[in-house]
Amino acid sequence: MAADRLLDRIDRKQNPCIVGLDPVAERIPKHLISGSSFRDIGTAFKRFNFKIIDAVHDIVPAVKLQIAFYEKYGHEGLKAFKDSVDYARAKGLVVIEDGKRNDIGSTSQAYAEGHLGKVRAGQVKKPSLDLDFLTVNPFLGTDGLDPFVKVCRENNKGIFILVKTSNPSSGEFQDRMIRITGDERKELSRLGLDIEDNLTELYNLVALQVNKYAQALKGRRGYSPIGAVVGATYPKQSEILRKIMPDSIFLVPGYGAQGGSAKDLVNCFNSDGYGAVVNSSRGIIFAYEKHDEPERFAAHARKAAQSMIMDICSALDSCGKLPKGWKKLSL
Amino acid sequence: MAADRLLDRIDRKQNPCIVGLDPVAERIPKHLISGSSFRDIGTAFKRFNFKIIDAVHDIVPAVKLQIAFYEKYGHEGLKAFKDSVDYARAKGLVVIEDGKRNDIGSTSQAYAEGHLGKVRAGQVKKPSLDLDFLTVNPFLGTDGLDPFVKVCRENNKGIFILVKTSNPSSGEFQDRMIRITGDERKELSRLGLDIEDNLTELYNLVALQVNKYAQALKGRRGYSPIGAVVGATYPKQSEILRKIMPDSIFLVPGYGAQGGSAKDLVNCFNSDGYGAVVNSSRGIIFAYEKHDEPERFAAHARKAAQSMIMDICSALDSCGKLPKGWKKLSL
Repeated sequence: MAADRLLDRIDRKQNPCIVGLDPVAERIPKHLISGSSFRDIGTAFKRFNFKIIDAVHDIVPAVKLQIAFYEKYGHEGLKAFKDSVDYARAKGLVVIEDGKRNDIGSTSQAYAEGHLGKVRAGQVKKPSLDLDFLTVNPFLGTDGLDPFVKVCRENNKGIFILVKTSNPSSGEFQDRMIRITGDERKELSRLGLDIEDNLTELYNLVALQVNKYAQALKGRRGYSPIGAVVGATYPKQSEILRKIMPDSIFLVPGYGAQGGSAKDLVNCFNSDGYGAVVNSSRGIIFAYEKHDEPERFAAHARKAAQSMIMDICSALDSCGKLPKGWKKLSL
Repeated sequence: MAADRLLDRIDRKQNPCIVGLDPVAERIPKHLISGSSFRDIGTAFKRFNFKIIDAVHDIVPAVKLQIAFYEKYGHEGLKAFKDSVDYARAKGLVVIEDGKRNDIGSTSQAYAEGHLGKVRAGQVKKPSLDLDFLTVNPFLGTDGLDPFVKVCRENNKGIFILVKTSNPSSGEFQDRMIRITGDERKELSRLGLDIEDNLTELYNLVALQVNKYAQALKGRRGYSPIGAVVGATYPKQSEILRKIMPDSIFLVPGYGAQGGSAKDLVNCFNSDGYGAVVNSSRGIIFAYEKHDEPERFAAHARKAAQSMIMDICSALDSCGKLPKGWKKLSL
């Protein structure tokens, strides 16, 4: 079960921090790039990622790869993506793909099988991209989500459904007040939400759907592999969303580069200190830039990851949410 | 300008029909598959697509590739995707990718450059996947859409933004009644929409945003490369959406296999007979199955495409929307 796997790694590393492997050709150290073809760039991405993974695999529970940065270079990029996924897995990390995939019916099924499940090839079924978790966009409704949930159930994998994203314009559609049904109103009121005129934000409605999936598929430790993306930049909303989806793990983007602070995101965690993982990409993998030491990029990434761990765990500790049995870190 | 390019092909072929190249390993003729590795399947997809393209390139303006069916097989699948895109382009077709990509900021930019624009490699910028059009999911708001629009402007490419999809559950979020601002109400009322309690469907709101982009970027013939996905299965909604987005081209899925009829989708067209393209995938590429003639799959695809053209053009003619100068087809 993917949720248990993730929670076990979190306990083993005693922190919920994730390193985002989002390489950018213009920003990775030049000594890694040996030519200017897409293949050369793919090879450089692999070199870069492998070194970062070597440097952080013993201190963080998971990595997240943003597939856009790889498929930008076509099949050569996708090959570097897959090799990085396999390398991270072999190093004991849970591997999350940020792909925000979405479609309906047999197309959603194809995405789910290709990214998370198994793919028929001749007489056998075998894994293809084989991620542990994938982010999914809910805009097409349950026709689009059901196939992902089914593949998760069958293959012990997980998804994070976009609920409230971290970007400034996420409110344009996600925050709009939506007319809800009597049942929805009852459910939200029961959780203590103040509903006026039978209206609530769209993201609350998406959260209700995520929770429906989550309640029907839970792991040994009570958490579901059907999780939610909830931005670090919206503390008030995350408090409410935590109530609507008590058993879903939140994937929290927006820490660091996007302006979300550790204090802002403690609401994404349950009182037991679990229920969220926090991602940082550029702030970690490009930490070397501040020091202008490209040869030591991996060492700087490790240091930046350690600072992030300290920052998040201190914030959890300050509000009494550091899980039982974890060492207290002193700053 | 991508909108002009598409309209010119539509006029040259005298129909707005698109063939969807959505290969499925279990359904393509067995004689095309020479082994069971992902590479073998990719090769089979190429053989299949090339023959279909050969069979329809002189009668339809464009093809649409659903990338999920290719990336299912990892980088081998993506290579078959890219080779098919290039082959279709060389045969004079406009090439549309159904990828429903979405993200924010630099990640959206990476998707846009990789799928539509140019990618820096060393000292030069060069095309990567190089599609003419890409479908895009609007759930993250304008932060996510702006980079796509920018890349379209700079590279003469286009996007179709999901507005009202063809699937049964599209209503779960897209049809929800949303509270709108005074300005939005004014704009919708001006178009003759009946607004009660300052509420309208979410898809109308997305359509307003699409139209904003479209009005700022138009081609020689008055249409914009910033288009919309509007399902064939919702004739009432498409009539309204046509008013809100008068200058956007609609990509219309759901004809045939998903139950949308030619009569249902004429509302997607403007009175000049332009403004929409209609896709059919399985109904065309797997037409051979009904006849159990796998060796003649390409000939059956051509026949099915001809029937579709006849069906759509007759429906346009029946409501006086067949463009001036087009030959009338008799059934």
